[in-house]
Amino acid sequence: MKRRTFIKNTSLTGLGMAAIGPVLGNPKVLLPNDLRVNGKRIESRIFELAKFGRDENGRGYRVGYTQGDIEGRAWFMDLMKNAGLNPSIDAGGNIIGKRNGKNPTLKPIAFGSHLDMVPDGGNYDGTLGCLSALEVIEILNENKIETTHPLEVIVFANEEGGLIGSKAMVGKLTKEGLEQISQSGLVMGEGIRAIGGNPEKIASAERKKGDLHAWLELHIEQGGILESENLQIGVVEGIVGILDCEITVEGFANHAGTTPMKLRKDALLAASKLTVSVNEVINSFPGTQVGTVGKIEAFPGAYNVVPGKVMMGLEIRDLSFEKIEMLLTEIQKRAHAIAEETKTSITFRREPSFNLPALTDASVQQKIQESAVALGLKAKHMQSGAGHDTQQISLIAPVGMIFVPSVGGISHSPNEFTKAEDMTNGANVLLQSILSIDQS
Amino acid sequence: MKRRTFIKNTSLTGLGMAAIGPVLGNPKVLLPNDLRVNGKRIESRIFELAKFGRDENGRGYRVGYTQGDIEGRAWFMDLMKNAGLNPSIDAGGNIIGKRNGKNPTLKPIAFGSHLDMVPDGGNYDGTLGCLSALEVIEILNENKIETTHPLEVIVFANEEGGLIGSKAMVGKLTKEGLEQISQSGLVMGEGIRAIGGNPEKIASAERKKGDLHAWLELHIEQGGILESENLQIGVVEGIVGILDCEITVEGFANHAGTTPMKLRKDALLAASKLTVSVNEVINSFPGTQVGTVGKIEAFPGAYNVVPGKVMMGLEIRDLSFEKIEMLLTEIQKRAHAIAEETKTSITFRREPSFNLPALTDASVQQKIQESAVALGLKAKHMQSGAGHDTQQISLIAPVGMIFVPSVGGISHSPNEFTKAEDMTNGANVLLQSILSIDQS
Repeated sequence: MKRRTFIKNTSLTGLGMAAIGPVLGNPKVLLPNDLRVNGKRIESRIFELAKFGRDENGRGYRVGYTQGDIEGRAWFMDLMKNAGLNPSIDAGGNIIGKRNGKNPTLKPIAFGSHLDMVPDGGNYDGTLGCLSALEVIEILNENKIETTHPLEVIVFANEEGGLIGSKAMVGKLTKEGLEQISQSGLVMGEGIRAIGGNPEKIASAERKKGDLHAWLELHIEQGGILESENLQIGVVEGIVGILDCEITVEGFANHAGTTPMKLRKDALLAASKLTVSVNEVINSFPGTQVGTVGKIEAFPGAYNVVPGKVMMGLEIRDLSFEKIEMLLTEIQKRAHAIAEETKTSITFRREPSFNLPALTDASVQQKIQESAVALGLKAKHMQSGAGHDTQQISLIAPVGMIFVPSVGGISHSPNEFTKAEDMTNGANVLLQSILSIDQS
Repeated sequence: MKRRTFIKNTSLTGLGMAAIGPVLGNPKVLLPNDLRVNGKRIESRIFELAKFGRDENGRGYRVGYTQGDIEGRAWFMDLMKNAGLNPSIDAGGNIIGKRNGKNPTLKPIAFGSHLDMVPDGGNYDGTLGCLSALEVIEILNENKIETTHPLEVIVFANEEGGLIGSKAMVGKLTKEGLEQISQSGLVMGEGIRAIGGNPEKIASAERKKGDLHAWLELHIEQGGILESENLQIGVVEGIVGILDCEITVEGFANHAGTTPMKLRKDALLAASKLTVSVNEVINSFPGTQVGTVGKIEAFPGAYNVVPGKVMMGLEIRDLSFEKIEMLLTEIQKRAHAIAEETKTSITFRREPSFNLPALTDASVQQKIQESAVALGLKAKHMQSGAGHDTQQISLIAPVGMIFVPSVGGISHSPNEFTKAEDMTNGANVLLQSILSIDQS
């Protein structure tokens, strides 16, 4: 049943602004509807879900394919059933719930996120997007609203293990990928089987370009930009590309007492100069690129030995892969000079598992931006520095992502936290964006 | 029987110089005797000894208290017996062989080194000093020379494990020290028992100040100074003091994709800046001090996480502990500035096992220098950057050390090498120095 809904809550700021979402059923009328999510319901379910998946020390351990993951998914599927979504599990282990639209010939608008977490992770990463997707369905149900497009709620399997479920959906989960060991201890294929998928028929999970009208994911920012700039909504322009390099510095291990300073070939001194240089190079160009030396190991690694060898890990992220390549070239120039100065050799090996940047759809970005403004929320366009299932789905559909603030920018930690008000804001933007896309 | 010996080999340069050693039995006559060691015998025994103590991969493993150590010691004690040294083992596991002098009321001149090695070590560290000490005795025997002072050849036990035998001899091996686990896997006390010592009676190994007339140790340099300066003999002025500090850098671990560069508290960036600063501070003062960051660990240590914590190991060595303290203070000043700049905290914890510098005796240095010159060898005064049993014995006796070149400065490695000619030179300087001290 179609409903026309208009502004009721005039206390929301910005609702009188010009750039506001279309009213359901009448795309010409540029006024927002008065549909709002039940923020308390989302928050209470966040806490309910957090009970599933603990390790022996009581830390969060709803890791993909583990017992906690299985229990959390079962709990969520029950909620989906109650909401009439008739959930099923595809061959990749993804949970898919469907709601009919008025026009069954249209492709569905899909939205959701993931329920699995990293070991000792937090309660908001992924779960907010799933519970808000369910909330959207329930609000539509309660208001007896039928969209034009069919809707799908998707819970991707084992996102933290390498976007495994979404890779399966875009046909990128290979035989080798199925044989990798997952954090749960199971190889991916067996893990997928454990949660109700079917690794033998993994190709049946694949969806082709054009199969979805759009994909939307609400997620916590996992960084501190929104909070530090006092903003409520991030309109994600894209998910950054990632290049990892293993760097090997070779010097000469020697006695730290008997080797005069000028006769040393100290691999750790060279590695330290390079780590400082990475920081300098990354900061010397305008933009939002990041570069990190996150791992380092010195050999033999003793007080009394000048390190003869150092292995270090460099990661560069940006929305432009050309820029990543340019930054790497600059870093390598610095490395060349450092190697000469320190009488060491420095070699770079690219990790094969790089990620190309994934851009979100410009018109979906616009719908999210308009919905935020209509709801009186302060928003900005920004990149996602973290990987998300959305980057896989961008290969087959127009995609969008909505970010809400993470307190202190903390994520993948029990200290991960997003305020109830921010979750509610994000879920309302998700709801309004879906309705807006449905009408466009 | 006393013998007077004069120069025979006029091909040696420098023998005509004024500053030369006294002739046996006539300290007034400033001409060197013609006693010379048998260099070929030393070299062939170096290779024979190298057969004892191998690990399952064929690498050198004559580690203190292991089967290889026990076998090597037994082989050496047989040679001592053949040389009439009547060897015994003290409570600390040290092998002591004695040769009478003309005046039994005088205190003995002692010399030697150690036979144990580090895992995967080389063939010259310690062994050269022991085999040369034995060679001195045999040359005296063959030439029927009786010294005025009694002589002692001492093989200290488990030098590489922390100067254990020499610590026992100066009364510094504590009950706690006896309970430490040694590299052999045995606790020190059990290790000492395995090689014929007696941990229950460890105090009986102790020798008091004045019990030895002098102590001399011939050793490979374990550094590259003599080789790079084309010198044959190092007259050791002292064994450096060593201060180890464990440095903890605390930042904040965060997502390497979502945390903008300016919001980071990168502990590894701070640690790298500090490592570079350590090198700068050490090099900014004149002298032979050395400073090393030899170990580093970053937590959590992943490509995609900005390191939140780094542990690193700093070691400073110099002949003056005041200078070590001054250098540490300068490094700490730099650390303070780096911590502020990087929004991290940096704390220093001194390892309790510091070593005070141990100076050698000036008159023993002079005897060594004069003997080298008399033999036509190019010598220089230098410090020992490595620790040696001599530093313990300096607490109870006037001590001296003679260094010979290490090819490439390499030590504690199968590539450790000293040329036969250099070993012979060192053993001749040892012989002449002993005779000179005996007459002084």
